[in-house]
Amino acid sequence: MQHTITFTQPDSPTPIVVQVPTNTLLADAAHLAGIEIGQPCGGQGRCGRCAVQVLEGSVRRRSTLRLSTEAIEQGFALACQTVVEGDVSIYIPPQEKIERKLTTDRVVAEVTVPEGYEYLNDQTVRRIQLELTPPSMDDQTDDWSRLQTAFRLGQRFEHMTCSLSLLQRMGDILRAGEWNVTAVVDVANILEDSESNRSVRLIDLQPGLVDEYSPLWGTAIDIGTTTVSLWLVDLVTGQVRVQVAEYNGQIARGEDVISRIMYASKSGGGDDLRQRVLATINHLAETACKRVNAKPENIVKATIAGNSTMMHLLLGIPAGSIRLSPFVTVVNHPPVLAARDVGLNINPEASVDCLPGVASYVGADITAGVLSSGLDVAEDITLFLDVGTNGEIVLGNHDWLVTCACSAGPAFEGAGVVNGMRATQGAIEEVWINGETFEPTYRVIGGGKPKGICGSGLISLLSETFLTGILDKAGNVNLMASSSRVREGAHGGEYVVAWGAEAESGEDIVISRVDVDNLLRAKAAIYAGFTVLADTVGIPLESVSKVLVGGSFGKYINVEKAVQIGLLPDLPWEQFDFLGNTSVKGAYSALLDWRKREQITDIAKRMTYIELSADNSFYDAFTSALFLPHTDLYKFPSVVAALEEKSIHVDK
Amino acid sequence: MQHTITFTQPDSPTPIVVQVPTNTLLADAAHLAGIEIGQPCGGQGRCGRCAVQVLEGSVRRRSTLRLSTEAIEQGFALACQTVVEGDVSIYIPPQEKIERKLTTDRVVAEVTVPEGYEYLNDQTVRRIQLELTPPSMDDQTDDWSRLQTAFRLGQRFEHMTCSLSLLQRMGDILRAGEWNVTAVVDVANILEDSESNRSVRLIDLQPGLVDEYSPLWGTAIDIGTTTVSLWLVDLVTGQVRVQVAEYNGQIARGEDVISRIMYASKSGGGDDLRQRVLATINHLAETACKRVNAKPENIVKATIAGNSTMMHLLLGIPAGSIRLSPFVTVVNHPPVLAARDVGLNINPEASVDCLPGVASYVGADITAGVLSSGLDVAEDITLFLDVGTNGEIVLGNHDWLVTCACSAGPAFEGAGVVNGMRATQGAIEEVWINGETFEPTYRVIGGGKPKGICGSGLISLLSETFLTGILDKAGNVNLMASSSRVREGAHGGEYVVAWGAEAESGEDIVISRVDVDNLLRAKAAIYAGFTVLADTVGIPLESVSKVLVGGSFGKYINVEKAVQIGLLPDLPWEQFDFLGNTSVKGAYSALLDWRKREQITDIAKRMTYIELSADNSFYDAFTSALFLPHTDLYKFPSVVAALEEKSIHVDK
Repeated sequence: MQHTITFTQPDSPTPIVVQVPTNTLLADAAHLAGIEIGQPCGGQGRCGRCAVQVLEGSVRRRSTLRLSTEAIEQGFALACQTVVEGDVSIYIPPQEKIERKLTTDRVVAEVTVPEGYEYLNDQTVRRIQLELTPPSMDDQTDDWSRLQTAFRLGQRFEHMTCSLSLLQRMGDILRAGEWNVTAVVDVANILEDSESNRSVRLIDLQPGLVDEYSPLWGTAIDIGTTTVSLWLVDLVTGQVRVQVAEYNGQIARGEDVISRIMYASKSGGGDDLRQRVLATINHLAETACKRVNAKPENIVKATIAGNSTMMHLLLGIPAGSIRLSPFVTVVNHPPVLAARDVGLNINPEASVDCLPGVASYVGADITAGVLSSGLDVAEDITLFLDVGTNGEIVLGNHDWLVTCACSAGPAFEGAGVVNGMRATQGAIEEVWINGETFEPTYRVIGGGKPKGICGSGLISLLSETFLTGILDKAGNVNLMASSSRVREGAHGGEYVVAWGAEAESGEDIVISRVDVDNLLRAKAAIYAGFTVLADTVGIPLESVSKVLVGGSFGKYINVEKAVQIGLLPDLPWEQFDFLGNTSVKGAYSALLDWRKREQITDIAKRMTYIELSADNSFYDAFTSALFLPHTDLYKFPSVVAALEEKSIHVDK
Repeated sequence: MQHTITFTQPDSPTPIVVQVPTNTLLADAAHLAGIEIGQPCGGQGRCGRCAVQVLEGSVRRRSTLRLSTEAIEQGFALACQTVVEGDVSIYIPPQEKIERKLTTDRVVAEVTVPEGYEYLNDQTVRRIQLELTPPSMDDQTDDWSRLQTAFRLGQRFEHMTCSLSLLQRMGDILRAGEWNVTAVVDVANILEDSESNRSVRLIDLQPGLVDEYSPLWGTAIDIGTTTVSLWLVDLVTGQVRVQVAEYNGQIARGEDVISRIMYASKSGGGDDLRQRVLATINHLAETACKRVNAKPENIVKATIAGNSTMMHLLLGIPAGSIRLSPFVTVVNHPPVLAARDVGLNINPEASVDCLPGVASYVGADITAGVLSSGLDVAEDITLFLDVGTNGEIVLGNHDWLVTCACSAGPAFEGAGVVNGMRATQGAIEEVWINGETFEPTYRVIGGGKPKGICGSGLISLLSETFLTGILDKAGNVNLMASSSRVREGAHGGEYVVAWGAEAESGEDIVISRVDVDNLLRAKAAIYAGFTVLADTVGIPLESVSKVLVGGSFGKYINVEKAVQIGLLPDLPWEQFDFLGNTSVKGAYSALLDWRKREQITDIAKRMTYIELSADNSFYDAFTSALFLPHTDLYKFPSVVAALEEKSIHVDK
């Protein structure tokens, strides 16, 4: 039976009407009406962000999690959990805008071309000028054979392959160039010196002889769960000419990988996510190309890093098995594909190289990170940590590498925390609290009124509230503290960081007991990961001589505070290195130099993956780490000293 | 400025109305209206078959070739040469129906499986059952690596490739089969023992263990300019299970390759022709599969023969250079492609192998024909001839091969002859004429009233009219003959084969002086081809010990009569062999056995192509052959004997 669903929205005066059968989800009906409702949890009914208001008509709510009784009385319902039972009129409240902000101002990294980079030795993509003998009645060789002969003479390539699409254009291009053409070929197969394939692949053919020193464009891409970064690189000089980044368009369909996998498993969900990340990458490529007066179709090679879920979703490969025991991917090392097949709007024949991952939760972002951090060639025992929406850890040196993944959740990216937000304009990024008055001082990204607290702000806040005694080591709020900022709130005890009057929204910005619990679980998962890895190889964490932190997470946090809450091991600050986006850096190295590319494959093979969910010691380590900074204070001597300095009782 | 064009048709009571701008071709306007007007000459204004009647309104005729003054007065205009200048009303006369006739009744050839065919030795496509170890927490290998490992263990394949599309389905297939799967792989690269590629390619993956003796489907296809033939083959047993054929859907856009190339060069023309031949092949594949309860997607390999123009049009490669000096193709030997890229509705990953050709007018139909005729391994000097819409000739033995192409034109397929038609129901296929009364006896295909004369009928008629003195050696009609059947017609002298009363149309079926000239030019081109080839290698035509005739043309003609008109060299009839469709037979051999496939590549390399248009001796040979049977009667002793027997003066 069909029902009439009428949608009204704040920004549009005209209602939109669609017809759907009984039991259609409101989210699907809205999609049909062309209205996008954000589903940060991937449509699992967990986040409550897709709530809409039923003005009239009959619906059935499968779940009302996160909706207050009052809201339900006002007609609110979760679009992802509510089905229609008759004609219905729906009001869609203003949606959280996910800005497509090009964060070039914050992410630009100083990148120098690797020392000794030589295009003709290192690069797998080559541009070759060819002057062919025109055909005549005495030489009626076909165009394709003529081209191959010219290649063989000049380059000693034994065998060349070519797509049907290029064959279709070949005759016209050769004639337009009057038998002078410039070819771009992928020679990876002959460089790798493997027995498997001795052929080069034709990527592009242009009429005329193109200046051999003009740029030949490639791109290194990191697909983060939250942010996609793209570097546009001139493969001739090796220079990074443009760096751009923006939010992954999939965010509207889930903030973490699990939500994305859940959403992808719904009908049409996988394709929706695939198109969203493609749209993000294609937009970045277009933006980057504009800055150097190039066109996206001039990009002839792309090297892509990203976690295993991102890689599956990009390629349209079902990711469901990643989420379910025994947690395997469909593919850790995808074959090199043509851009046409992947769906990238660059040169359709461009080689798209998705870097190899190790396991469901240790993907190519980590192997690329290990490469760019130098961990795999380190003399001394080194710890590599990448905290994004998940936390991945690698421990090792040039002899051995062990790795694990902790489902830290996106708490440090601001999700799961009432006043949490991403590190953009208006986020409180650092907090200091006066130990006597409990009054805070804070710094806001971009200045202006605060809107919420981002990851580095939360770490800072957790540390300060602990060191000033507002929180005890179990994370309980000390309601005896003599300050109006410490109070009983809707979610238990809370501390007010900013009063409503100073805040953008006019409402108090607080951190509550529930928020603290989420943060403790996140940091405990990561610390437990360190512990298990170190135990696996039988070394104490203290013997680590270097801690390398990748991801944008590491760029803005204060090591001292991260140690104080027990997120990072208690080592001298000079042993920490914050490397920024190690994933895109690794992709850039692999894009330029085929030996580096081989090295990543080697890294992926060398890494021993420890599955924490199958590891009995993990739960113990996690439980012990659910405290500030840890149950075992002997592991955190610097924190003990700091507490003692502030005369706070330490209960070892 | 937009004009209203109103089309009326005999079969539909309602007129169709479209709006088009000034100067739109009537053919394009009709296409827009969904009305297909046949253009056998490819829209060059040469054949006159697209004539329509302008009932009202203003048009401009660019050309009126083939239209009588009377017809023009009645409003007739060539749809391919006439543009609109205002609102127009058009009547579309009944169109010649190109029947999609499955000619299985006539083309079925007895085919035996090649002696000693062994699927596991000869075939490049293999079906392999695999029992994988399911993943567990102790073995989290990704699906793709797991599959490759299973392959390597069982088959010793070093390296395997796989399309993105299969990767997308792989996880679900492995799980649906509970880790038992049946894979189909293309192992051509490792069989050829070439250094270029050592990998096998995954074509198909099915859940569960498929019976290894059940059919594995492949197809051999010959794309003729007129007819497309498709054989459905069980690759396991090697048996041809179904043979089907039907007219190439491109016929409506030109009857010969030149017309097709002209049409393809128009905007959208190439794509139209590509889609038409794909529709024909896909329909044949569907029909063939139905007969054995298979599905087209079960076909995992296709081997295709056809002339160079057909190959270019199939693959969407511009064919313009074939027509223009220096007559080169874009590609003589296309790479093996996936069915998905070609556009065949069989298994999307099926290997589509387009066989190699030699030159613009000696294509893969001829190399395949040489293979199946055995010419390339013959001890004695052998002549191979394939007459379809073009005539291709190969002369040689196991030591050497020379080849040329004669633009015979489609006269022997009934085109260019007023009462000519294809060899279908109603065609006069053989004629005998009484030497005294000049009264004919004839045989009609399918019995019933005659509609016209097909190729074998024309050869027979030419020979009989010549031997009875109705035609002289120059092709002039002897108007002095005492029979009402010999008369002066609209196109000069003519002979009436069937009176209107006996004919289907009610009008006399005749052969005129103009028809005779067309037929003489066609046969002279072919005979001149023999002459030039023999001269090139310096041997007399008489030293040829075998004449092999391929193509459906040879199946129905009478050798004696073909010799009498000087189409075939005057050799004893036991030296002629009529082989039927040698092209599809060659494709079948290559489909089954990779060594035969290699042999075709070798044949293509060995064949020396003689370009007749660049050969001065060709014109002389052609002129000498423009007579019945030839200027030089010493070349045709048996014809001289026949004439003398009939007391006809022979002017040697």
